[in-house]
Amino acid sequence: MTRTVYVNGEYLPENEAKISIFDRGFLMADGIYEVTSVLDGKLIDFAGHAARLERSANELDLALPVDMDELIEIHRKLVELNGIEEGMVYLQVTRGAPADRDFAFPDPDEVPSSIVLFTQNKPGLAESPAAKTGIKVISIEDVRWGRRDIKTVQLLYPSMGKMMAKKAGVDDAWMVEEGKVTEGTSNNAYIVKNGTIITRHLGNEILAGITRNAVLRFAQEAQMKVEERSFTIDEAKDADEAFVTSASTFVMPVVEIDGAQIGEGTPGPVAKRLREIYLEESRKAAV
Amino acid sequence: MTRTVYVNGEYLPENEAKISIFDRGFLMADGIYEVTSVLDGKLIDFAGHAARLERSANELDLALPVDMDELIEIHRKLVELNGIEEGMVYLQVTRGAPADRDFAFPDPDEVPSSIVLFTQNKPGLAESPAAKTGIKVISIEDVRWGRRDIKTVQLLYPSMGKMMAKKAGVDDAWMVEEGKVTEGTSNNAYIVKNGTIITRHLGNEILAGITRNAVLRFAQEAQMKVEERSFTIDEAKDADEAFVTSASTFVMPVVEIDGAQIGEGTPGPVAKRLREIYLEESRKAAV
Repeated sequence: MTRTVYVNGEYLPENEAKISIFDRGFLMADGIYEVTSVLDGKLIDFAGHAARLERSANELDLALPVDMDELIEIHRKLVELNGIEEGMVYLQVTRGAPADRDFAFPDPDEVPSSIVLFTQNKPGLAESPAAKTGIKVISIEDVRWGRRDIKTVQLLYPSMGKMMAKKAGVDDAWMVEEGKVTEGTSNNAYIVKNGTIITRHLGNEILAGITRNAVLRFAQEAQMKVEERSFTIDEAKDADEAFVTSASTFVMPVVEIDGAQIGEGTPGPVAKRLREIYLEESRKAAV
Repeated sequence: MTRTVYVNGEYLPENEAKISIFDRGFLMADGIYEVTSVLDGKLIDFAGHAARLERSANELDLALPVDMDELIEIHRKLVELNGIEEGMVYLQVTRGAPADRDFAFPDPDEVPSSIVLFTQNKPGLAESPAAKTGIKVISIEDVRWGRRDIKTVQLLYPSMGKMMAKKAGVDDAWMVEEGKVTEGTSNNAYIVKNGTIITRHLGNEILAGITRNAVLRFAQEAQMKVEERSFTIDEAKDADEAFVTSASTFVMPVVEIDGAQIGEGTPGPVAKRLREIYLEESRKAAV
């Protein structure tokens, strides 16, 4: 089935969805994005993604070309047109296509931002087999830019990290800076030790995950102890459990880090419980 | 006049030059580029740019979709079709447009790399008025990723740096990491002290400028002393001269750094001499 996607005000078949070669998203990675999950045909944590999009745009002086009402309407229309029950909606906004390439930002009154959305159909997303076995990760050096709190399309290194993981025969990579884990290539990283959930504190070094925010809230509501601080790979190897969170994988157990088995080498009770709570609460709150 | 540009094998009017929204250059900054100057309708340092393109591609496991003979032919045809006497040819190669967004690289046998080229007409490029007065720069923190030796399209921060410079009422910014100047937003940085030309040594921290390479060679041929080492902003403020080099500005004197006048506040003799030599020798060697 040919997807219908959204490009600058038009709903188009995916093979006709194109942008100018002068778009600053293409020439200069001058763009931001969000990925919102869909369960039961409804949007998960949409308000969180919309708020973060606004923050990313503000940090970069990037004008959003639609308001939040229009944005949710486009999301819903794409979900409907493409018959998505489980999957994702990808959204990208760039600083538009000026008449020529120039490092300086174009005048936003003359060059409107570009906006692109498309769906990804993932039947069985919530019942992912990987969640039952857990995933394996390696650690790699974090050489990304210093403003990872802004969700930009500068994803070359995370993409290279995925390939390093693949080459090592595992699923993903955790990035390490100055000896401490920052995050996974497209998720936040956690360990559990003696019943305490430990995940890196917010800052410029990591993205403030929307799923991270929800999961920490649910954990606290369930009387689990949470510590927001950085940790080393050695500490992670010695943990009782490890897991990652992201909009598209929810809560995903990690059972091996750099070849070392974590806990029993199977998904731990905290990760399993948090996944259940997250899915249950998110479905209830979906819009 | 509407430019003719090149996109994946076709010569097209610029307003019809589009790429898929699924192109990894647009979604993930998974692309590399080069800018070659044109003087007297001929290409400056083409072999250097072609060699660096191949190196960038190798570092990223990115397949080049054309060979070097085809590449120079496309450059020349665009220069001719667009009647460029002085200006630039911009070239970008990305990891192509797979059927869907995924962090993992697509199979290069299934998804060919994308290639885009366009010209920028800049009459008077060699006689730039800025070269006669010199430019002013500010220093900013360098928060780019750790592989700046690869010429990727991850140009958001350099672009933000240009805007910081603009806001400060100056022309450009020099980036500083761990107290030492790395490079300008789109050029290599130099100071001159007691007749010695000082510029940062090569490494992952800076791009190995094609113009840098040529200028250092010409300097040595002209019996000038060259030291390849890092320097601080304080050392730069205390220098006799400062300048930058790039493919599109050649050798450009810097007369002010963070509000401090450099030397006499006018282009210095070393920068002026190197600009003359570079332009003269480059024109001779142009193809």
